[in-house]
Amino acid sequence: MSLTLSESDFSTCEISDALLKLGVPQGGHIPDIHRISPHPRGGLCGPAYTVRLVLASERDAPKLQGHFVDLAPEGAVAFVCAPPGAQNAVWGGLMTAGAQARGVLGAVVSGRVRDTAEHLEAGFPVYARGTSTVGQSPFTRAAEVQVPVTVNVDAQQHGGMPAVTVNPGDILLADEDGVVCVPKSLEQEVLRIAAQGREVDARCLRDIQSGVGVAESFRRHRGKS
Amino acid sequence: MSLTLSESDFSTCEISDALLKLGVPQGGHIPDIHRISPHPRGGLCGPAYTVRLVLASERDAPKLQGHFVDLAPEGAVAFVCAPPGAQNAVWGGLMTAGAQARGVLGAVVSGRVRDTAEHLEAGFPVYARGTSTVGQSPFTRAAEVQVPVTVNVDAQQHGGMPAVTVNPGDILLADEDGVVCVPKSLEQEVLRIAAQGREVDARCLRDIQSGVGVAESFRRHRGKS
Amino acid sequence: MSLTLSESDFSTCEISDALLKLGVPQGGHIPDIHRISPHPRGGLCGPAYTVRLVLASERDAPKLQGHFVDLAPEGAVAFVCAPPGAQNAVWGGLMTAGAQARGVLGAVVSGRVRDTAEHLEAGFPVYARGTSTVGQSPFTRAAEVQVPVTVNVDAQQHGGMPAVTVNPGDILLADEDGVVCVPKSLEQEVLRIAAQGREVDARCLRDIQSGVGVAESFRRHRGKS
Repeated sequence: MSLTLSESDFSTCEISDALLKLGVPQGGHIPDIHRISPHPRGGLCGPAYTVRLVLASERDAPKLQGHFVDLAPEGAVAFVCAPPGAQNAVWGGLMTAGAQARGVLGAVVSGRVRDTAEHLEAGFPVYARGTSTVGQSPFTRAAEVQVPVTVNVDAQQHGGMPAVTVNPGDILLADEDGVVCVPKSLEQEVLRIAAQGREVDARCLRDIQSGVGVAESFRRHRGKS
Repeated sequence: MSLTLSESDFSTCEISDALLKLGVPQGGHIPDIHRISPHPRGGLCGPAYTVRLVLASERDAPKLQGHFVDLAPEGAVAFVCAPPGAQNAVWGGLMTAGAQARGVLGAVVSGRVRDTAEHLEAGFPVYARGTSTVGQSPFTRAAEVQVPVTVNVDAQQHGGMPAVTVNPGDILLADEDGVVCVPKSLEQEVLRIAAQGREVDARCLRDIQSGVGVAESFRRHRGKS
Repeated sequence: MSLTLSESDFSTCEISDALLKLGVPQGGHIPDIHRISPHPRGGLCGPAYTVRLVLASERDAPKLQGHFVDLAPEGAVAFVCAPPGAQNAVWGGLMTAGAQARGVLGAVVSGRVRDTAEHLEAGFPVYARGTSTVGQSPFTRAAEVQVPVTVNVDAQQHGGMPAVTVNPGDILLADEDGVVCVPKSLEQEVLRIAAQGREVDARCLRDIQSGVGVAESFRRHRGKS
C-alpha cells in the first residue's frame, strides 16, 4: 500500500526539490504566503478546495450560489485566491468555525485574512499574504469554486517568474518556509523522489557535519558539485 | 452613562465592521501597520495625537518648535506619519521613554521604528510598517502636530484604494490584525453598532459550530447570505 | 588593548548612529533584512565573507570553483547577495551545517532562505529578506566570493536612497532592528563614538524618565534640540 503526502512528514522544501526534479516550474512554490496560525502538529497538507474571488465591481464574473465555506469537502485545504489589489480580508473567524465544522483542515489564502486571535485559539492553520481589519463585503466576493485558479503575483516584484495555477484536488503543503502546490497526478512520484532526496540529504548532512565540505559531499551523494 | 471605545474590548475587526455600516470607506483600516511590541493587556486604544513628518529636504514645510513627544497629551496614542520613501526610523527608545513619562499610551507609526528591544522591555505598544537601524536625523523631521494627516500608501500596491486621513482626537485602535481609525464624532454610534455586531456574530458562531452552515446562519442572523 | 566590535555589545542602532556621525550614508543600514533565526546570545557580529550570486541565465558572469560555503573563513559572517527578482532560496539547512562545521558565525542574506526549522534547531543565526521552498539550482548560482557586493534595492520602494556596498572584511552587525555594515577601517572610530553615544543616550534617558522632556534632555546632553 502506498503512502500519501498527507501521511508523510516531508517539508515544503523536500517536496519542492522533488517537484523540480519532475520538471514542475518553481518547484510548485507559491511565493510570499506566510503562516498566520500554525497547525498543532506543524505543517498543513491536503487536497485543494479552490475558491476564486473577484472584486465586487466585476459584475460580469460568475456568482457563486451559497457560501464557499459550506461547499468545502471534508479533509480539504481551502485555497482562497483574492484578486490583486484587494486590501480587505477574505478569511475570518466565522470561516474558520465553518471550515472546522465541516472537517476542513486549514486555509491557504492568496490575500489577506483577519481575526488572527480566533484562528490561533481554534488551532486552525491559516496561511496568508497579510492581515486586514475589514472583511469580504463590500469589496470582494466569491465567483467560482473548484475551478483552476492562477495566483496573481506582481510580475515586477517576482522577476517575471511564471504564475502558479492551483487545480481542485492538487495537494497543498504549507509550513514555516511557505506554500507548495503538488499536482495530484504526481503525488506518488513526488513521494518516491522526496524519499530518495531525504536519504541523499541525510548522507550529505553527515559528511558536511564531519568536515567533508559541501562540494565534496554533493559530489559523493548527489553526483554533482 | 455611556462607555467609551477605550473602556470597551472590541477588536479592530469588530470596529471596522461597525465603521463600514456607517459608511466610512475601508472601515477605517490603515493597511500594513504591524505590531512591533504588544500592550501588556493586548490591543491599544486611545485618541490620536497626530505628528506630520517631512523629508529634511522639504525646506518650505513648517518647522515644529520643540520635540513632538514633549507636546503629546496624556492618554493619547501618538500617530506618527513619515513621508513616503523614508528608510529611517522615526520612533525609538528615547521616544518611548518620553511618551511613557507623559502618560502616552502607545505609538502607531506609518513608517519605520527602531530600538525594538527597548519598546518590548518598557511594555510600550508600538505599531509600524517596518524597522530600521538609523534614526530621524538627518533624514526626516517633524513639521506639524495635531493637524489632519493623510496616510500615504502606494496606490499601485493597494489597488487605488482611497487614503485614510487621521484627525487629531480620532480614536486609534490597534491589535494583531492591524490599525483602525475611528472618527471621534462616530464613537457612540460605533460602540452601539459594534455591540449589535458582536451579538449577531455570537449567534452565527453558535449556529456555524453546530453545523448549520455559514450561508444559513448569516440568513438567520444577518438577514442576508 | 582596544576592543573590537565583536567583543562589544552595541546594538545595530548605536552603531548606525556612530556611522552617521562619521559621514557614512544611511548609517550603513541595509534595509529590510530580517531575523529568521536568532543567535543564542542575541545579535550577530563578524567580518563579512561576501558571496555574489547571479541568475543562472547570466552565462557571461564568472563561475565560482567549488561551493561558496567551503571557502568561508572561520569566524566570518557570510553575506550572500542574490540577484534582484530571484524567488528561490539561496541559503538552506546544509549550508548552515557546512558553515557551522567551518566556524562561520552566521549568514546575512540579501534574498530568500529556506529550511527555517533547521537554522533554529542548529542555533545558527540567519537573516534574510524572506523565505522560499525552492533552493539555489537551477535558478541562481555563485559567481564570485570576497569581492565588493552592492545590495540591489528597489529604488522606487526606497525613495532613491543610495545602495550599500559590502566589502570583504567589513563588519556586519545584525539584530532584531536589522543589518548594519561597518567599513573595517572605521571600526575603532565607530567603537569610540558609539561608546560616547551610549553615555549621552543614558543621560538623556535618565532625564527623560524623570520628566525633563526630550527636547531639553537633547539640549543638555547632545547640544541640540
